[in-house]
Amino acid sequence: MILTVTLNTALDITYRVRSLRPHTSHRVSEVLERPGGKGLNVARVLAALGHPVTATGFVGGATGQVVRERLADTPGVRDALVPVSGPTRRTVAIVDPLSGDTTQLNEPGPLITPAEWSAFQGTYGELLRGAAAVALCGSLPPGVPVGAYALLVRTARAAGVPVLLDTSGEPLRRGVAARPDVVKPNAAELAELTGSHEPLKATQDARRRGAQSVVASLGPQGLIATTPEGRWRVAPPRRVHGNPTGAGDSAVAGLLSGFVEHLPWPARLARAAALSAATVLTPVAGEFDRSVYEELRDQVSVTEESSAA
Amino acid sequence: MILTVTLNTALDITYRVRSLRPHTSHRVSEVLERPGGKGLNVARVLAALGHPVTATGFVGGATGQVVRERLADTPGVRDALVPVSGPTRRTVAIVDPLSGDTTQLNEPGPLITPAEWSAFQGTYGELLRGAAAVALCGSLPPGVPVGAYALLVRTARAAGVPVLLDTSGEPLRRGVAARPDVVKPNAAELAELTGSHEPLKATQDARRRGAQSVVASLGPQGLIATTPEGRWRVAPPRRVHGNPTGAGDSAVAGLLSGFVEHLPWPARLARAAALSAATVLTPVAGEFDRSVYEELRDQVSVTEESSAA
Repeated sequence: MILTVTLNTALDITYRVRSLRPHTSHRVSEVLERPGGKGLNVARVLAALGHPVTATGFVGGATGQVVRERLADTPGVRDALVPVSGPTRRTVAIVDPLSGDTTQLNEPGPLITPAEWSAFQGTYGELLRGAAAVALCGSLPPGVPVGAYALLVRTARAAGVPVLLDTSGEPLRRGVAARPDVVKPNAAELAELTGSHEPLKATQDARRRGAQSVVASLGPQGLIATTPEGRWRVAPPRRVHGNPTGAGDSAVAGLLSGFVEHLPWPARLARAAALSAATVLTPVAGEFDRSVYEELRDQVSVTEESSAA
Repeated sequence: MILTVTLNTALDITYRVRSLRPHTSHRVSEVLERPGGKGLNVARVLAALGHPVTATGFVGGATGQVVRERLADTPGVRDALVPVSGPTRRTVAIVDPLSGDTTQLNEPGPLITPAEWSAFQGTYGELLRGAAAVALCGSLPPGVPVGAYALLVRTARAAGVPVLLDTSGEPLRRGVAARPDVVKPNAAELAELTGSHEPLKATQDARRRGAQSVVASLGPQGLIATTPEGRWRVAPPRRVHGNPTGAGDSAVAGLLSGFVEHLPWPARLARAAALSAATVLTPVAGEFDRSVYEELRDQVSVTEESSAA
């Protein structure tokens, strides 16, 4: 079983609206609702790839109830979310059906009490016992200490469970120092962490800060990976157009599934890049176009970088 | 007791967002949730004025549950909403805290089944027995027949209960023909009904189509009323700036409360205009600034028009 942690789960709402114009009124032609938050997106992609997943994190309120109902309808994902008193946040994506352009509104998330954070840590410790790997994903809701991911990384390492961290800002900076097996920043998160806008140099710097392997997602440019076994650049065979939300989460699912299947790094990275591209072609995060994924997987170019680069 | 009908109830969500820019991502700094839909706004204002109100209409799903919880926290409003299988729609108002400019997104509402519509009519008939007046407000959700308001107007008239209709388009056109006591269109709705952009002429035309009295809300220009007892122009003493959502609903509450208190038309109209203006000053519909209301109420200018005009 792969464990995914989403401390700031969300009810992702997607509105189809033609030509959003500020300061006017719009009729929404179509409404989609999905369980959201990066770790739940990762869980849904892993389940679609056939991997049993347990999803934990916080959930609460009427929005949280919808998240749980939707998760119950997702085969392969076990709901181990911890109930809290505050309501799960919403995210609203306003998608223009013609251009695919997306305007995003993100609520801040509920205030987590010290007792709730403590209850989560107990659940997390128990779930780690049955986990082949764990992914710690996304932002921290208010009330959770900024060093939360560092603590969760150390707990996973102490339990002997490989841990991937995908977050940003100060929680990433502290989490990296706790020596996770993999971090997966995007270009902006990597630059913020290291101060460098040159991705290859920055991934090396992130390793020096504590991460054993660093896989940076660079949008249409694909991935760049710096690991103890080597360094690679990974590029999809063609550029895809659509909604990039969730592409990074699908890359995480590709890396984790490849890891538990004992694939070598180049095959893991090819899977991650193909899943990312196939996710851009769907309107919501946590889902991907399976035929595009299968077509791209064998066409992704994975190039090893010399260690002197 | 005053009865308000909201067939397309809503969970009104207000987001404070500085400078909404299409095709970018935004953090929402503050989230407000309120029971919404025109009839529920009217009910909340009536209750705040001290009038016992019963609110009916349809409610369903997780959003509907939040609407009911919030309504239970509103003293003076009795919840007589009829449960349906589809979820109550959301409306999202994105308000810029500096300018007050509002961008509105409205979901379409749940599909009402014939059995649900039939169940509502039974409830409505029973509630009319204890009602001093009834307000029929807002859009129709999918599945409710376009002649629904005409039917509800006739039922109220047969029960001897004075009925106010506030809707638009074809439901308004058909509802007016059923001879409601009052219709309260805004300028656009009145023009669409009558084909005339001259409000005084258009209100007279709307009376010929069946409405006994017509009160048109003209935004910052105030109100214009054509009734069997006379015709009036009503103007607030000064222009107020803010969020106009809900101003029309507060005008309806002013008219209804004045009616059941047996106030003469000029006093009813002054109250409606003052409540409208005091609502523009609050960020959400269904609420008003009480001190502004009390200050404006005695300063509103009500001018009788000669019948030859």
